[in-house]
Amino acid sequence: MPFGHQKVESRRLLLREISQHGPVPRIDLAEHTGISRATVTSVTADLLRGGLIEEVPRESRSDESARGRPRVDLKIAGGAHLIAGLKVSNASISLVLLDFDGVDVMDHECVIPMGRLAPDALAGHIRSGLADLADKAGRRLSDISAVGVGLAGVVDAEHGLVYWSPSLNQRNVPFGDVLREALGVSVYVDNDANLVAMAELTFGLGKSHSDFIVITIESGVGMGMVLGGQLYRGTRGCGAEFGHTKVHLDGALCRCGQRGCLEAYVADYALVREASSVGGMSLTTPTNQAVATVLRAAKNGDPTARTVVDRASKMFAMGLANLVNIFDPELVILAGEQMQFDHLYADTVIEEMRKSIVEIDKPAPEVVVHKWDNLMWARGAAAYALEFVQDTAVEALEDA
Amino acid sequence: MPFGHQKVESRRLLLREISQHGPVPRIDLAEHTGISRATVTSVTADLLRGGLIEEVPRESRSDESARGRPRVDLKIAGGAHLIAGLKVSNASISLVLLDFDGVDVMDHECVIPMGRLAPDALAGHIRSGLADLADKAGRRLSDISAVGVGLAGVVDAEHGLVYWSPSLNQRNVPFGDVLREALGVSVYVDNDANLVAMAELTFGLGKSHSDFIVITIESGVGMGMVLGGQLYRGTRGCGAEFGHTKVHLDGALCRCGQRGCLEAYVADYALVREASSVGGMSLTTPTNQAVATVLRAAKNGDPTARTVVDRASKMFAMGLANLVNIFDPELVILAGEQMQFDHLYADTVIEEMRKSIVEIDKPAPEVVVHKWDNLMWARGAAAYALEFVQDTAVEALEDA
Repeated sequence: MPFGHQKVESRRLLLREISQHGPVPRIDLAEHTGISRATVTSVTADLLRGGLIEEVPRESRSDESARGRPRVDLKIAGGAHLIAGLKVSNASISLVLLDFDGVDVMDHECVIPMGRLAPDALAGHIRSGLADLADKAGRRLSDISAVGVGLAGVVDAEHGLVYWSPSLNQRNVPFGDVLREALGVSVYVDNDANLVAMAELTFGLGKSHSDFIVITIESGVGMGMVLGGQLYRGTRGCGAEFGHTKVHLDGALCRCGQRGCLEAYVADYALVREASSVGGMSLTTPTNQAVATVLRAAKNGDPTARTVVDRASKMFAMGLANLVNIFDPELVILAGEQMQFDHLYADTVIEEMRKSIVEIDKPAPEVVVHKWDNLMWARGAAAYALEFVQDTAVEALEDA
Repeated sequence: MPFGHQKVESRRLLLREISQHGPVPRIDLAEHTGISRATVTSVTADLLRGGLIEEVPRESRSDESARGRPRVDLKIAGGAHLIAGLKVSNASISLVLLDFDGVDVMDHECVIPMGRLAPDALAGHIRSGLADLADKAGRRLSDISAVGVGLAGVVDAEHGLVYWSPSLNQRNVPFGDVLREALGVSVYVDNDANLVAMAELTFGLGKSHSDFIVITIESGVGMGMVLGGQLYRGTRGCGAEFGHTKVHLDGALCRCGQRGCLEAYVADYALVREASSVGGMSLTTPTNQAVATVLRAAKNGDPTARTVVDRASKMFAMGLANLVNIFDPELVILAGEQMQFDHLYADTVIEEMRKSIVEIDKPAPEVVVHKWDNLMWARGAAAYALEFVQDTAVEALEDA
């Protein structure tokens, strides 16, 4: 390994460490990373000179108060870069602006037409949303170093290629390139559930875990996997596909055209289809109204509605149990924003899941419910872009 | 990182590199590992002095033949250590003896009583099998540096703890400790399907892949996962549990006591149970005879037998598709020794699987069938133990 490469690697490693644990004393950096104290001193000097980190006075601890000169810790220089993250939903885009230290600077929500859009049209909405976001923060679009974008669907994140998405009216869209062209900044596109996993890893419940699964519940079911502290995407960039795992041989017809997918039992349209087949509901009612009706009826004890919701919950528990059997993760996070799918977060579902996993004389993995809003999805997208900005910044550092 | 630790790490890294790619010139080692040429020279000198590697004359290449002094490559010194690997099956133990370079020295098979054994009894059979193996090779049990052991069941490999196994009559057996006591050498225990994955990674079809899944088909269905070039075991050591993933809500009763497990549809006993329920077969017939009868009848076109076998194949394909949807691996290896389960390896199963995965405009993962014998399972167990022997050997090296 040429020396220059080693130096960039040390810079990258120390910047990540400071980002995760700062403010942090230099001595701790050496201990945590295994990099020698001398190298920590020279590398952090480079990072300081480049404006990527800054020194802050240490909060005095009682055991230090008596000593000599004031001590300093190192933290990320928040002002070094601006990073935007956004999530495209069915009829809106949620955006957030973070500083280089991952701190919220501004957020914004904009309305877009419902349904599938042409790539250029969606790029236009994203551009105008970002411009409004920057404007609200008193900045310009060109001040933003990178943008992270989360979309539902199957995405090859490495190449910014969207195989398909409910937000786009075409398959195989090089949406990263389309956006880069439209925005004039670096763009990183990923599946939205992956970015929720990224947010949990960076800001959330996954911070202290290296192996966990995040299940997102909206109108569909998404999944993100963190294995060994890294987001796992699969070889073709389309792993972690949970909603279309099959829970019944030749079962219910799914929107994807196949049969027996988990989504064909638990998604909003599946609930409505079930309920409508026994009468008392019109197929012309908008899905969100119809699903609200079914769920309310179930809560009020209507036996038909109950059996519809119960089966969805059981299928969901079975799918979760399969994931636990395969991954044996430390933690399963059920994340979502729509309180209406409460029945999938229920204790009975978690109990049912526990009964369906391989029994050993050790506790089952922890399952936690984490309800959050679209802004957290956007934060995950920003966290994803932030990693690239960190890497680019250390590569661009001049030598002393 | 203290300097001594870095040195051990470099030794470990170079020994692994020589083990995987030897005979190899020193200059290639520096290039492949990123370790400086000076360090490669000093570390390989340590490894040579310790007898872990040796110099061999290079096969002359035309572009070199004219040059001066004879060139040498480095390879593992096969004679440095002996490593045994074994797989415990239902009525036999397969054993293999490898040298430090992973080359077969001897193999052996011994008969043991059928069914579940007491841990001490099984340890006794393993000891006598190993003694016979060593004897056949003209060596003694005490010449063996380490033993790798593969068992069916749920195993916490890190602690050598067997939560349960069809080979043991107790749960939660610290079988690693039991064997270490009985044998007087280092012992490494793991789930047998994990060790097949290890064998594929070390010697087999997985050598050039970093993300693949191995499915083993015997009387049950096992699974090993290699992610990022490493065996993935899960947090509690009981991941990769494929046979007990659920393929039908409240479905067929499984031997594990739960309902709807894949094994409850595809295992030998499941086929026999199905066939017996329509008459023409006695439940008192031994399973292996009964399953042979069902499979033969299916091949001869008997409609009842066909429907039994067809459903098993479809359930298996559905389970495989779920794995592909979740992992998106480069490669799926179907590995097994029992030709009788041919119907699960059939092209129609692989075709059915392809129809049930999320469709993107990229080819589905490669699926290959790899039929092998118990000896390859034993080789995987030895490969697992070999890694520990390598690590221990570099730690024990004296400084120059």
